[in-house]
Amino acid sequence: MIGIAVIGYGYWGPNLVRNIAEVPGARLLYVCDLRKERLAAVKARYPSVEITDDFEQVLRDPSVDAIAIATPVSTHFKLAMKAMMAGKHVFVEKPMAWTVDEARRMVDEAARRRLILAVDHTFVHTGAVRKMREIVENGLGDVYYYDSVRVNLGLFQHDVSVVWDLAVHDLSIMDYVLPEKPVAVSATGMSHVVGEPENIAYLNLFFESKLIAHIHVNWLAPVKVRRTLIGGSSKMIVYDDLEPSEKIKIYDKGITLNGNPQRNGEKVYQMLVGYRTGDMYAPHLDMTEALSRELSQFVDCVEQNQQPIADGHAGLRVVRILEAATQSLAQRGRLIELEQTRRIA
Amino acid sequence: MIGIAVIGYGYWGPNLVRNIAEVPGARLLYVCDLRKERLAAVKARYPSVEITDDFEQVLRDPSVDAIAIATPVSTHFKLAMKAMMAGKHVFVEKPMAWTVDEARRMVDEAARRRLILAVDHTFVHTGAVRKMREIVENGLGDVYYYDSVRVNLGLFQHDVSVVWDLAVHDLSIMDYVLPEKPVAVSATGMSHVVGEPENIAYLNLFFESKLIAHIHVNWLAPVKVRRTLIGGSSKMIVYDDLEPSEKIKIYDKGITLNGNPQRNGEKVYQMLVGYRTGDMYAPHLDMTEALSRELSQFVDCVEQNQQPIADGHAGLRVVRILEAATQSLAQRGRLIELEQTRRIA
Amino acid sequence: MIGIAVIGYGYWGPNLVRNIAEVPGARLLYVCDLRKERLAAVKARYPSVEITDDFEQVLRDPSVDAIAIATPVSTHFKLAMKAMMAGKHVFVEKPMAWTVDEARRMVDEAARRRLILAVDHTFVHTGAVRKMREIVENGLGDVYYYDSVRVNLGLFQHDVSVVWDLAVHDLSIMDYVLPEKPVAVSATGMSHVVGEPENIAYLNLFFESKLIAHIHVNWLAPVKVRRTLIGGSSKMIVYDDLEPSEKIKIYDKGITLNGNPQRNGEKVYQMLVGYRTGDMYAPHLDMTEALSRELSQFVDCVEQNQQPIADGHAGLRVVRILEAATQSLAQRGRLIELEQTRRIA
Amino acid sequence: MIGIAVIGYGYWGPNLVRNIAEVPGARLLYVCDLRKERLAAVKARYPSVEITDDFEQVLRDPSVDAIAIATPVSTHFKLAMKAMMAGKHVFVEKPMAWTVDEARRMVDEAARRRLILAVDHTFVHTGAVRKMREIVENGLGDVYYYDSVRVNLGLFQHDVSVVWDLAVHDLSIMDYVLPEKPVAVSATGMSHVVGEPENIAYLNLFFESKLIAHIHVNWLAPVKVRRTLIGGSSKMIVYDDLEPSEKIKIYDKGITLNGNPQRNGEKVYQMLVGYRTGDMYAPHLDMTEALSRELSQFVDCVEQNQQPIADGHAGLRVVRILEAATQSLAQRGRLIELEQTRRIA
Repeated sequence: MIGIAVIGYGYWGPNLVRNIAEVPGARLLYVCDLRKERLAAVKARYPSVEITDDFEQVLRDPSVDAIAIATPVSTHFKLAMKAMMAGKHVFVEKPMAWTVDEARRMVDEAARRRLILAVDHTFVHTGAVRKMREIVENGLGDVYYYDSVRVNLGLFQHDVSVVWDLAVHDLSIMDYVLPEKPVAVSATGMSHVVGEPENIAYLNLFFESKLIAHIHVNWLAPVKVRRTLIGGSSKMIVYDDLEPSEKIKIYDKGITLNGNPQRNGEKVYQMLVGYRTGDMYAPHLDMTEALSRELSQFVDCVEQNQQPIADGHAGLRVVRILEAATQSLAQRGRLIELEQTRRIA
Repeated sequence: MIGIAVIGYGYWGPNLVRNIAEVPGARLLYVCDLRKERLAAVKARYPSVEITDDFEQVLRDPSVDAIAIATPVSTHFKLAMKAMMAGKHVFVEKPMAWTVDEARRMVDEAARRRLILAVDHTFVHTGAVRKMREIVENGLGDVYYYDSVRVNLGLFQHDVSVVWDLAVHDLSIMDYVLPEKPVAVSATGMSHVVGEPENIAYLNLFFESKLIAHIHVNWLAPVKVRRTLIGGSSKMIVYDDLEPSEKIKIYDKGITLNGNPQRNGEKVYQMLVGYRTGDMYAPHLDMTEALSRELSQFVDCVEQNQQPIADGHAGLRVVRILEAATQSLAQRGRLIELEQTRRIA
Repeated sequence: MIGIAVIGYGYWGPNLVRNIAEVPGARLLYVCDLRKERLAAVKARYPSVEITDDFEQVLRDPSVDAIAIATPVSTHFKLAMKAMMAGKHVFVEKPMAWTVDEARRMVDEAARRRLILAVDHTFVHTGAVRKMREIVENGLGDVYYYDSVRVNLGLFQHDVSVVWDLAVHDLSIMDYVLPEKPVAVSATGMSHVVGEPENIAYLNLFFESKLIAHIHVNWLAPVKVRRTLIGGSSKMIVYDDLEPSEKIKIYDKGITLNGNPQRNGEKVYQMLVGYRTGDMYAPHLDMTEALSRELSQFVDCVEQNQQPIADGHAGLRVVRILEAATQSLAQRGRLIELEQTRRIA
Repeated sequence: MIGIAVIGYGYWGPNLVRNIAEVPGARLLYVCDLRKERLAAVKARYPSVEITDDFEQVLRDPSVDAIAIATPVSTHFKLAMKAMMAGKHVFVEKPMAWTVDEARRMVDEAARRRLILAVDHTFVHTGAVRKMREIVENGLGDVYYYDSVRVNLGLFQHDVSVVWDLAVHDLSIMDYVLPEKPVAVSATGMSHVVGEPENIAYLNLFFESKLIAHIHVNWLAPVKVRRTLIGGSSKMIVYDDLEPSEKIKIYDKGITLNGNPQRNGEKVYQMLVGYRTGDMYAPHLDMTEALSRELSQFVDCVEQNQQPIADGHAGLRVVRILEAATQSLAQRGRLIELEQTRRIA
């Protein structure tokens, strides 16, 4: 049995607590929060769990094997480092840190102490995203583009731009699904509230191949959209996360190139591009709650000393793109190279 | 009665011919094309119309008041200039020319000779786009963003990128609907067919105000999408051109700012943004064929010596953005200033 | 404060308990169920609530003012009658009883003892259905038809047909929204599982006016549909309960009659019907949880001795239609008159 | 070459003429109509076709092998009988006749003279309907139900109810797709215009097996719907004719029966029904214009003396159901047996 403490019982913490309480092999030992009324809420629902506002107490308890951190991003680094220094494995919310430097030090610390450092890239544990990876690996052909739209009305954040709040999901999905890592990023956007971070943004991601990726995020949209298109040379995917069951549609569509372009009588080149339109199919998806699956895997990784699917390196790659995108945003889309990330990955 | 000759009976020419044949006040005199079989097709359907492969013959005929040009873009400049030099008014397909220089010379020529120069920005004559302009002018509040997606499978062009083929529609709509003209543009994209122009592209348009615009065009998408979001401080619009009747939806949604942000107990700033969600409505739209309305207005402009809604200046502004976007595309999104366009407009 | 006991903690009971625990003016005193594990589930979540498997104990407690019954339909009559004989007000799940006779005796008992008898027609407390009633009363004109489709895959019931399980929702909505009560019903359907009740059914409801109503229910559909059309002489409504926010769309559409039909040359009458197509609008809806609102009103009714919106008479009218539809189903759609219901209503 | 004359150039006639002009093996010889302006329209577009208002002239011409009738229903019988008596093959619009008696005499006449009598059940020649038949025959398992909704605003007819105008499409599709013919029909509906036929109607069709069919047609709906559900024991189909490309979706969904129902502790039977949810797929469909395919087959049938897919018997079966439905409508849904039809089929 792996003893786990959850730090932070705000927006996401209750989901961690609920799932950890039911994951086989895990024992939920503590919930730690600075707010008394949040701790009272834990006690009312989980009478047998220890509550505390003292993080150090948790660290001192040798029955705690792992710490799950669900506090504001700005505190991730400090809490995770302390936890690892106390010999605890860490499961940390995304984005894993405020800066690349912090993220890198967390990765190094985990490596040095041979501890598991997992980042909560929840989406990569959904049936839909796992199915996409399967198709991208086997059947899509060359990957041409990845285009995601993630827009809705609210919730405006004060401390981070919409890129850190929404695009982080797409970046974690891309990191898992695509066969390559980006080499450069540019981003444009705008804040429509004086003194606040961008509430609309567009990210471009460049790769060494002909793959191109684009993410549109917006807190100020009249309708909610969660739609990703992935184009390949053999198949194309539409992933609509708002569809209740047919979230993934795979289209046997594309172009075929018919030899060399030729001249016609009007001296205008004509492309000999053919269009292929075949069946569409929507595979049945595993509908297990992603967080349950993810925490179960975290417990397995701790027990068997294996790397999780979204480990510190994945978290670092995502933070690097967020940091670069933020730089680019400030310069109306200047291209930022990501070479160092590749070395790390 | 305004005597009109149509030059070019390829893809779009037949639509011009069909509509001119029915517009009150217009007389369709000639159809001119270099291909004999196209001229035969005209004759079979419009036995009373003169057919010819000799453009000069058309220019010499004094009963021809105006020339409608529906030939490939590369020929627009030469044909339009000859027509104007012969004293003919011109109605030219979009984009109006290959380069800013050509477009500017066309505008100058029309001004010098006091001829009408209309550019076929068909969309600005649809009920949907006219309704959008009405709402943007009166009810939307400050315009925050304009976001358009125009993607489908095919038709790949050989001579122009997807920007010239598809984004030109969005640029002409924005030129008509938005209260400001862009001051800078950047564009990214990719060609997935060796030696051919970009088949996927993303354009960013910057303005002097906090307005931001973005266009996504793609010839290689598994589904057809024609969707524009316009966000304003008072209302937001969704324009879906594939909807059979409810193409425009107006949302009484947005944010309200409640005074100054304040500190809370956790030392984290909290934005006091409120979310407003009211009724949506889809106004009944005039479903008159846009091209019929447009040609009817062109005839009126010629008769009454008035400027058309989409005149040479509008056409030039669009070409300037296309040219700048093409430069930017070649440099992975470098920002290109558009200052001179503003002076012209 | 109104003391309330909930009887039955199966599928729906937990929703009653959760809401009663939060309704101002109510005190949740008991949860009663025959299954020990269900009572344990209550205790874990609501430590201060009394749990018991002895209904008589609840009845004897004078601090219990009202009983909420969420047990299988077959037990509603017996439990509700006992409760009323013990002087308790009653809130009972729908359908309120197995037979018209039972329902009528419940209504009579409540009247005799001046007790509140509320039936849980949850939908009539939703923002969407309340908005529909408002429009039907004011703006729809003459009501022409009411057409509902409520289909999905599962859950097959063993003891009741799909009519009692799904059409009961539509009947309760119609009872609330329409200006008239039906005078006759016919129903057709089929069971595709040997020995089991109908899993697909179609109900026709006839009225004294030209209003016609129809309900399609199906447990064996490949897609989930919850869509109602209401046609009126001035407006038409589409109610799609699966839409996340725009559940109600109001169309300013219809026909206009232009004088007398006339003969034309072919001796065929031509109707002079005109078609009116105006704006559509989707009003913002109150999204308060219907059950919370409903229980709050029940508490008010008990305190102020007022009739609830869905009282025993409404419940009886619905049961009468269900009973008649069941008779008709057994006779391949024979028309069954509902005259006695009208008298009661 | 088969010489063909088209009788009637109103709403549908131009489609026949356009297609016949292009079908290999056919020669369009005459278009006959009583209205001079319609004949002029033919001449303008098809200068080489003979136009006439004299049906007898057409009949006398021995180069005319077949007559295509696109006149009002009330005239089908007389025109078709005259044509067959003159030895001409017949292609007649649906419904093929006003009464079962007329339809039967047409069938008999064709049989006696060994002439081809084809009925224009256009939908059975679409890629979508042909695909449905293929799946129903091979893969759907036992057919449980067929449910169609065909509603929109307009066009109100004066001489026939909505059943003859819209349900005729569904009946012709069902006749082609389903493995059984109906044995009884009932119909309910309403007219909302004084003195006019029903503008809304619901048809129930009963079969010898457990198959049940239902059709909802309405001229007074706020939205256009063309949706058919077909449920089978192995697969289920959704056919949405308004979808631009994915008109047919095949769901690998259904129920599985797990042995005998059993009692549980609460003495309530529980069904052991399981729900199966697998992939969905949308096969690529042949998008050839149905009428072109149909007329091509008619020409082949005439040349090779073969029966068309929709022959006089199919037309008669559809008319029999329309006639019975009309009787049932007048009696608020009384069940009408269709036994004689089965004998004919």
